[in-house]
Amino acid sequence: MSKKSRGCDYERKLVNYLFNNGYWAVRVAGSGSSKHPSPDIIASNGLRVLIIEVKSTQASILYLKKETISKLLLFAKGFGGEPIIAVHYLRKGWYFKNAKELSRLSVIKLIPEEMNRQI
Amino acid sequence: MSKKSRGCDYERKLVNYLFNNGYWAVRVAGSGSSKHPSPDIIASNGLRVLIIEVKSTQASILYLKKETISKLLLFAKGFGGEPIIAVHYLRKGWYFKNAKELSRLSVIKLIPEEMNRQI
Repeated sequence: MSKKSRGCDYERKLVNYLFNNGYWAVRVAGSGSSKHPSPDIIASNGLRVLIIEVKSTQASILYLKKETISKLLLFAKGFGGEPIIAVHYLRKGWYFKNAKELSRLSVIKLIPEEMNRQI
Repeated sequence: MSKKSRGCDYERKLVNYLFNNGYWAVRVAGSGSSKHPSPDIIASNGLRVLIIEVKSTQASILYLKKETISKLLLFAKGFGGEPIIAVHYLRKGWYFKNAKELSRLSVIKLIPEEMNRQI
């Protein structure tokens, strides 16, 4: 399975997870390749709007580029929603972090122990 | 150009139109083929959230299935947003209609004269 299709597969899994938790969720077409900034998933339950960037890793630590965070924050501010980083760690499952908490860090290093189990 | 890629082309044009009008907009991946109901485009300017189904026609009248309207209304209600039908008529351009106004009709027939020029 290519890196891209594996990415889509995790996005689909997270969309299902969101529907099962009361959200209406969509995957964004061409995220990362569109000429406009765009996240991977947008979800809402009518109260909270979630603007989500999805990552998966086989490692125990995930490093993110500052640019990933700044683009997500920009879109979430314009659209109106919470900027969320969702990481699937192999054999551990999904962990979440509000990207606002990461915006001032010079090195962005995500470990499950410092993230949330619920979105 | 296939019917599907022509459809995507109009969706991209409408996303650009929305960005030029102060909205942050995304095309939805796999709309129409996903197992969950989903629209073609979701857009927001932080105040209004638009849940959009995109159509294009070379005819002067566009007929829509009741099911198209009911699925759009369902998603818009769950997500929290205005259900909008956006139609591109050949040589006339874009026209818009709030789908709530169409929900009780038995035959859904859209002509530019009965639609809005602005979203």
